[in-house]
Amino acid sequence: MENSSEDTDTHDGILNRHQVEQNPKKLTWRTWLIGRPLPTAAAPEQTIIKLVGLAVFGADALSSIAYAPQETLVILAAAGSQAFGYAFPISLVITVLLAVVTISYQQTIHAYPSGGGAYTVVKENLGVTAALIAGAALLMDYILLAAVAISSGVAQIVSAVPALYPYRVALAVGVLTLIAIANLRGVKESGNVFAAPTYFFLSMIVLTVAVGFIRYFSGTLGMVIDPPQMESLHTEPLTLFLLLRAFSNGTTALTGVECISNGVRSFKEPRSHNAAVTMVWMSTILGVLFVGIVYLLGVIGAVPSESETVISQLARTAFGGRGLLYLGTILATTIILVLATNTAFAGFPSLSAIIAEDGFMPRQLAYRGSRLVFSRGIVTLAVIAALLIVIFNASVTALVPLWAVGVFLSFTLSQAGMFRHWWRAGIHKDQKLLEQGNKGWRWKLVINGFGAFCTAVVTLIFAVTKFTDGAWIIVLLLPTVVFSFFAVHRHYQSLARDLSLDHFGEPPPYIRHRVIVPVAGIHRGTLEALQYARSLSDDITAVHILLDPEQREIVENKWRSWGKGVRLVIIDSPYRTFLEPFLGYVDELCKVTQPNERLTIVVPQFNAKRWWHNILHTQTAFWLRFALLSKKGIVITEVPYQVH
Amino acid sequence: MENSSEDTDTHDGILNRHQVEQNPKKLTWRTWLIGRPLPTAAAPEQTIIKLVGLAVFGADALSSIAYAPQETLVILAAAGSQAFGYAFPISLVITVLLAVVTISYQQTIHAYPSGGGAYTVVKENLGVTAALIAGAALLMDYILLAAVAISSGVAQIVSAVPALYPYRVALAVGVLTLIAIANLRGVKESGNVFAAPTYFFLSMIVLTVAVGFIRYFSGTLGMVIDPPQMESLHTEPLTLFLLLRAFSNGTTALTGVECISNGVRSFKEPRSHNAAVTMVWMSTILGVLFVGIVYLLGVIGAVPSESETVISQLARTAFGGRGLLYLGTILATTIILVLATNTAFAGFPSLSAIIAEDGFMPRQLAYRGSRLVFSRGIVTLAVIAALLIVIFNASVTALVPLWAVGVFLSFTLSQAGMFRHWWRAGIHKDQKLLEQGNKGWRWKLVINGFGAFCTAVVTLIFAVTKFTDGAWIIVLLLPTVVFSFFAVHRHYQSLARDLSLDHFGEPPPYIRHRVIVPVAGIHRGTLEALQYARSLSDDITAVHILLDPEQREIVENKWRSWGKGVRLVIIDSPYRTFLEPFLGYVDELCKVTQPNERLTIVVPQFNAKRWWHNILHTQTAFWLRFALLSKKGIVITEVPYQVH
Repeated sequence: MENSSEDTDTHDGILNRHQVEQNPKKLTWRTWLIGRPLPTAAAPEQTIIKLVGLAVFGADALSSIAYAPQETLVILAAAGSQAFGYAFPISLVITVLLAVVTISYQQTIHAYPSGGGAYTVVKENLGVTAALIAGAALLMDYILLAAVAISSGVAQIVSAVPALYPYRVALAVGVLTLIAIANLRGVKESGNVFAAPTYFFLSMIVLTVAVGFIRYFSGTLGMVIDPPQMESLHTEPLTLFLLLRAFSNGTTALTGVECISNGVRSFKEPRSHNAAVTMVWMSTILGVLFVGIVYLLGVIGAVPSESETVISQLARTAFGGRGLLYLGTILATTIILVLATNTAFAGFPSLSAIIAEDGFMPRQLAYRGSRLVFSRGIVTLAVIAALLIVIFNASVTALVPLWAVGVFLSFTLSQAGMFRHWWRAGIHKDQKLLEQGNKGWRWKLVINGFGAFCTAVVTLIFAVTKFTDGAWIIVLLLPTVVFSFFAVHRHYQSLARDLSLDHFGEPPPYIRHRVIVPVAGIHRGTLEALQYARSLSDDITAVHILLDPEQREIVENKWRSWGKGVRLVIIDSPYRTFLEPFLGYVDELCKVTQPNERLTIVVPQFNAKRWWHNILHTQTAFWLRFALLSKKGIVITEVPYQVH
Repeated sequence: MENSSEDTDTHDGILNRHQVEQNPKKLTWRTWLIGRPLPTAAAPEQTIIKLVGLAVFGADALSSIAYAPQETLVILAAAGSQAFGYAFPISLVITVLLAVVTISYQQTIHAYPSGGGAYTVVKENLGVTAALIAGAALLMDYILLAAVAISSGVAQIVSAVPALYPYRVALAVGVLTLIAIANLRGVKESGNVFAAPTYFFLSMIVLTVAVGFIRYFSGTLGMVIDPPQMESLHTEPLTLFLLLRAFSNGTTALTGVECISNGVRSFKEPRSHNAAVTMVWMSTILGVLFVGIVYLLGVIGAVPSESETVISQLARTAFGGRGLLYLGTILATTIILVLATNTAFAGFPSLSAIIAEDGFMPRQLAYRGSRLVFSRGIVTLAVIAALLIVIFNASVTALVPLWAVGVFLSFTLSQAGMFRHWWRAGIHKDQKLLEQGNKGWRWKLVINGFGAFCTAVVTLIFAVTKFTDGAWIIVLLLPTVVFSFFAVHRHYQSLARDLSLDHFGEPPPYIRHRVIVPVAGIHRGTLEALQYARSLSDDITAVHILLDPEQREIVENKWRSWGKGVRLVIIDSPYRTFLEPFLGYVDELCKVTQPNERLTIVVPQFNAKRWWHNILHTQTAFWLRFALLSKKGIVITEVPYQVH
């Protein structure tokens, strides 16, 4: 064989210069849906400023203002309305906890600027297993958050328009799909889409609280007019356990706080700084509004109830009735509940990409799609959340108990990790850590130790009080997920070992090729494959599987004219199957193959001109390839028919 | 390359003798469901005797006893109860028509012993287009029969157990699946399953009619006690059109009669004789029972009604109340309605196999599965019928108007074909036909001509009276189906021409191979593929698609150590895609490929040890093969990794 490398090199050179035309100019359904591909070089532009980051990553945390006060009061109501007095102190404790968690994550963001939050912190300080537990807990929580937030948003819509009730599952899946598509368009575009409604919500809540306090200090606020009936009065004594439950219910305000730490990479440079500042903004707004709302609720004597939320009671008391401002607040609350889903879409793909890069999840999750986002993570999240919505029939009550345990488990592990971090830096005088400027470690150690203790208590209370409601599913699933992380890792590691070129002795070159050509009918396509086979080796066997014994003579005669002297083996197939006898034959051949001999199956492959022509053929080549690939060391060559 | 043909020939010889072990000994879910494969040699045993044939092919025709009298009376009722007097004469005319159709098919069965019924007769005598119209009409009717019969059977069950109503679609699809599985087990087994209920039904109906006549002649029969209210009295005058509609409604008794003629091949030898005798039995039973029932209905003054069928009225009058015999008759009627579906499963696969053998439907339909039945036809029928049931929500009223037009269209064409047959034999003195012993052609010509006229009239009445109820769908679909038959045929013919070895000039042998090896990472798998490529040609280009520009130097360095001097082309992929730049490169290469040069792509293919490992890899090789197969003349060689 003659080598014309000069000629081809020229072409190869030309081809290298042709690469600029790779971006599709034509508008396909794909570019229409998610936009034209973005080049890798555009990645720095695909980052977001702090104001947008607050909307993208903060929607979930901020949305908890809409339900956390209510959740706290509902538990206290069981001990009678005088127990409401504990709501404000509890809210202060929760705010302290929020501050502790925020400070802890501040350190995390600066220490680990490539993102990863709890997972990265725990991996560095407590080891891989603990990190995978934290990661699995967070991933499961993001999935649940997507399902819960969509379902609760749809529940609000359905209670406004009851005619939509039979279509709630379809509606929920539809909204989920829209949010997924917005995220596939890229973090910048989805940020721009979601920023406006988030700030609309924030404005309305800030306005409500501000007006409330102005009227409170001017003495014109008064009590809630016509409050809803309180359910379950004096059914339980006011025990420490009850207070703890109220506290743990209130801590749902903290869910979503960690999300920024996972998404540091989405921020503009200096990304650590920007992410950290955004987080402080978010926690401050969240804390101030939370404490303010709980205080005002106490002042106006709001009553937790299924029929009217306490936010609604506060808004109509502050605005003096059900006017435009009141309606705006209620609308904004509904929208923010749906948008909280977007936090899951910001968190899940980033976190799974980080875990995938470590080889504990399928590598594809770390691959950036055409819009520079982790598209496969987005699709994975959307599909699993949609399944959950369908299985649980878009019911919030069925999904909520499964939720939030994971977040607090990851908080606990993360804070314990930071505790260990300061311990090593301070007590063990770890030089590397001290050089990073870890002064004041004693104070930070105390903060993180206290945070770890508090979040551990909350996690326990969550797990115990919600165990029979469904939290047991999480307790069962978590080890399963962690186990599968390790299984994936084992596979990648063993593969890397097998493929490694270290200590790789060059295998002996092949002395000879042995070629098998399956021949169904003798026609131009078969002869094409036969000719290719003859250019590989002289040791060729054509194999015909005889489905109809009466055809034997016809096949033999035709082969005599066209077979070019190639050996033909005819195998009877009494059960009219093609694959089984052929694979049996190949198996037998494999047994006698020599070490420096290579078995190649040359398959004539029919090329359909139109897609529907495929229906008219048995696709034997496809199934044959499928079956042969699982056999070791057989090379499959497909020679397409030259049909003109 | 050295040829060791002696060694391999021995092995090939051994392999030929190994073939007896092809029948799987182990019990898989497949053999559990449909039974162990049957050898082709067992085909003669896989035939059925006349008594079973009557049950398999006659279920549909015989089941019409359960509804045809009612359908006749319902139309007459519109002209008042005195019009019922016309029912008996009409039933006599229908019986004459039945006799004519039966005699016609008798001749068909003897003339065309390989089956095919209307399709074969029309093809021989009126040409291919007419035959395809008849075939399409029959196939569509079989599909509708399957959907209608199951839906009506399930409707009976649901009216007995109303709690099942919400599950009727699932129930219908479930029953359909069971009948399909029974048919996949083979014609013999399904015959044995369905024979008992068919004969149970026949016994109950014969008993009802016999007891009725005995009591009629002994004068103890009397009138129906407490008959249901008659709906729509005197709403229409007694016109000829009304009588024709009553007649055409009654002719639904003839649907299914043709089925035996399509399934001649399922009978034991002498198959033509056995099929013909079975058909005479069936028509005689059907005719006698039909006339007898209509006569008795007149005697007892039965009233057609939605609330109680006339069969129920006859049974309780004959048996003197709602005793065990009455209940048995009603139960048997329900069962036979479901079993009528089986006639569709006997007819559709045989007919589609015959059309497929002529190259007008996908060839796979003519392939006998592991149990020697046309399994793909059975599955096709089941899937389409299930879709119809789901789309029409298992509603009989929605499906019924679509049905029966096709049968009568095929009857008309078939009889016209036989008319032409006698015409050629008699008038044109066709020697070949006269030799077949076609004496008495004048008489047969008159019978078939009369039959063709009558069935044509019925077809027209059907099409006109049911047009707006849904028959227009059939009128639109029929040409579409016939058109697609021709499209399929054109494809097969053009392919056969392209692949034909007539006038086939041997193509020039290849002077050289040009080989491309896509290289994602440089590891043992890649080197395996590279070594294979080097054994094919010296003109090899390794192509690396560079997703991350920072990797360029690493790839180049690694290739310098391991690339064996093979030319490496690195193509930048700014949009992080692999397929597009690689396919673009191959396209450019194709443009400069010489006529006697052959382009081979050697793809390293990862071999997953466990099925779930596939999820952990991007399956680039699979998508690459998929994309390359549509390009002309490129050979794809997959070299599996040797992972130990």
